[in-house]
Amino acid sequence: MTPDPRGTRPGDLTAAMALALEQGLAACGVSTPNPPVGAVVLDADGVVVGAGHTQPVGGPHAEVMALRQAGGAARGGTAVVTLEPCDHTGRTGPCTQALLEAGVARVVYAVDDPDPVAGGGAQTLRAAGVDVVAGECAEAAASGALAGWLHRRRTGRPRVTAKIAATLDGRVAAPDGTSRWITGPAAREHVHAERARLDAIVVGTGTVRVDDPELTARHDDGSPRHRQPRRIVLGRSGVPDRARMRDTGEPPVEVLSHDPRDVLSAAADALDVLVEGGPTVLGAFFAADLVDRVRVYLAPTILGAGRASVDDVTVGTLTDAHRFHRESVLELGDDILITLVATR
Amino acid sequence: MTPDPRGTRPGDLTAAMALALEQGLAACGVSTPNPPVGAVVLDADGVVVGAGHTQPVGGPHAEVMALRQAGGAARGGTAVVTLEPCDHTGRTGPCTQALLEAGVARVVYAVDDPDPVAGGGAQTLRAAGVDVVAGECAEAAASGALAGWLHRRRTGRPRVTAKIAATLDGRVAAPDGTSRWITGPAAREHVHAERARLDAIVVGTGTVRVDDPELTARHDDGSPRHRQPRRIVLGRSGVPDRARMRDTGEPPVEVLSHDPRDVLSAAADALDVLVEGGPTVLGAFFAADLVDRVRVYLAPTILGAGRASVDDVTVGTLTDAHRFHRESVLELGDDILITLVATR
Repeated sequence: MTPDPRGTRPGDLTAAMALALEQGLAACGVSTPNPPVGAVVLDADGVVVGAGHTQPVGGPHAEVMALRQAGGAARGGTAVVTLEPCDHTGRTGPCTQALLEAGVARVVYAVDDPDPVAGGGAQTLRAAGVDVVAGECAEAAASGALAGWLHRRRTGRPRVTAKIAATLDGRVAAPDGTSRWITGPAAREHVHAERARLDAIVVGTGTVRVDDPELTARHDDGSPRHRQPRRIVLGRSGVPDRARMRDTGEPPVEVLSHDPRDVLSAAADALDVLVEGGPTVLGAFFAADLVDRVRVYLAPTILGAGRASVDDVTVGTLTDAHRFHRESVLELGDDILITLVATR
Repeated sequence: MTPDPRGTRPGDLTAAMALALEQGLAACGVSTPNPPVGAVVLDADGVVVGAGHTQPVGGPHAEVMALRQAGGAARGGTAVVTLEPCDHTGRTGPCTQALLEAGVARVVYAVDDPDPVAGGGAQTLRAAGVDVVAGECAEAAASGALAGWLHRRRTGRPRVTAKIAATLDGRVAAPDGTSRWITGPAAREHVHAERARLDAIVVGTGTVRVDDPELTARHDDGSPRHRQPRRIVLGRSGVPDRARMRDTGEPPVEVLSHDPRDVLSAAADALDVLVEGGPTVLGAFFAADLVDRVRVYLAPTILGAGRASVDDVTVGTLTDAHRFHRESVLELGDDILITLVATR
């Protein structure tokens, strides 16, 4: 393969973007309400010299973090970013300015910034003589870390994921109420990692009363992860005084209604919200057509009795079924995780 | 790669066994109660010169079919068979004799014959100077076409597969009873291909009354497949006179009880039985610990109401759950097929 004039072979670019996408995931939940962006800086020889992601509101954006790490090595190099660099002065200066000052020769990004205020970065960079490549790994970036933020841009509300952990016949609890543990350690690890990247978790008062969950994002050994999502409890009876979720972290947010739309008002600035149940709360979100994504963890077991995972009182016939598009199937230890996304 | 003295490169052998495994699948249901075996003959240069599978009872075994096609080209060549060649005279002569008369220099087979009467073929062949290789692709053969027959050898009863076609929340019908079609064309095609390979399909009288199914193995265009399974209906009320399954093929077998063991008596010579439902019949098979394999076709839909796929009245708590081992996950159009096997 012939090296490119700037010393970066095409293969390196894809690898650099993969690294930037990973950085973006690390910003999920951290950057809210700003987009969770990842950035990587290659020097003029195509070697990675910096990587970073968007910091909490008021802190540096991904490009600035990566450029700081690169220092002088960025000159003549390439910045690889998951989102088009911003072009406006908000709480921080424009990233386009930082990139120009660092002297990068090329900027490669995945997703165009749809924001009419912050957008236009590509044009500014091109006008200043920077070689700009748009759309690299755009689909992976848009369905990955940026999905919640893009959803919010498009719809004005957070992306809602319904989470189900059930037996293969769709049961989430046995007749006597037992439900721990239907799925295995790998599935639970996945749930906790996801919780740490989300802005809020929603459960109903029924789940709080029956399961008394902490709803925190923990590691295998029980220790807390780097960040915790907001916990929102939906239902008129609220959270009992002695509920375990009162013992840890920020107090839960009580939404004293049965309307899932009230949850979205309570999570007004959120990008990504996870509805963890129970069946009645999940049913209400499906009935209100507020579910953008479904994550179903299925154990290789058949229970044959007990509570079904979703209870939607508005469904009468098969054509009322909520239809989705399969995004992925993942094997997690003994269990599998099926991810569906809304077809709308 | 250096060619082997008999002209067969190792790569060819695996390919030949793959072809033999396919031949074996074509014998499923056809050969019952004999094992559905596939065989391939390579000439002395390693070229495929014959292939065949076990014919209906009294007809030739797989080796003989393949040898007939090979003719004189078998001399000095290799026979590749999914099961150890039989060594006894039943309704047909011993396959070992046929192989020796054809003058094959080598026999490669997958699974040892556990039958004390028919077994011992490898020893006979070796004693006659044939190079015998046992265990090639043994696992694939044992979990493929031969699974039902091996299960019967081990347990004295057919292998029972429970089939479920459900929404991702485990529903098989909406509250108004509608259930067509929960899964898509690719899943239905898969079900019909499987029906043609099975000895018997089991449903309950409830399913007959509500869905009035034909329970035949059909092609996409509605035409019948090369063979049809026996149809067994479990339940005290039997099959109504005007049921559609009375209009086609052999009359259904009525088992006028609620005990799944009575089904196994009615399918005494079967190797592979598929229980297609409904929920009560499936529940009875799970409760009786008679399910050896579960095939779950899941649509990317959430219904949130209606009938659950399995109704097992014996389950009270989570530790009562029927646990299996995941064998495979297959994407079938919009749906996925999860296959579980019993851990016992």
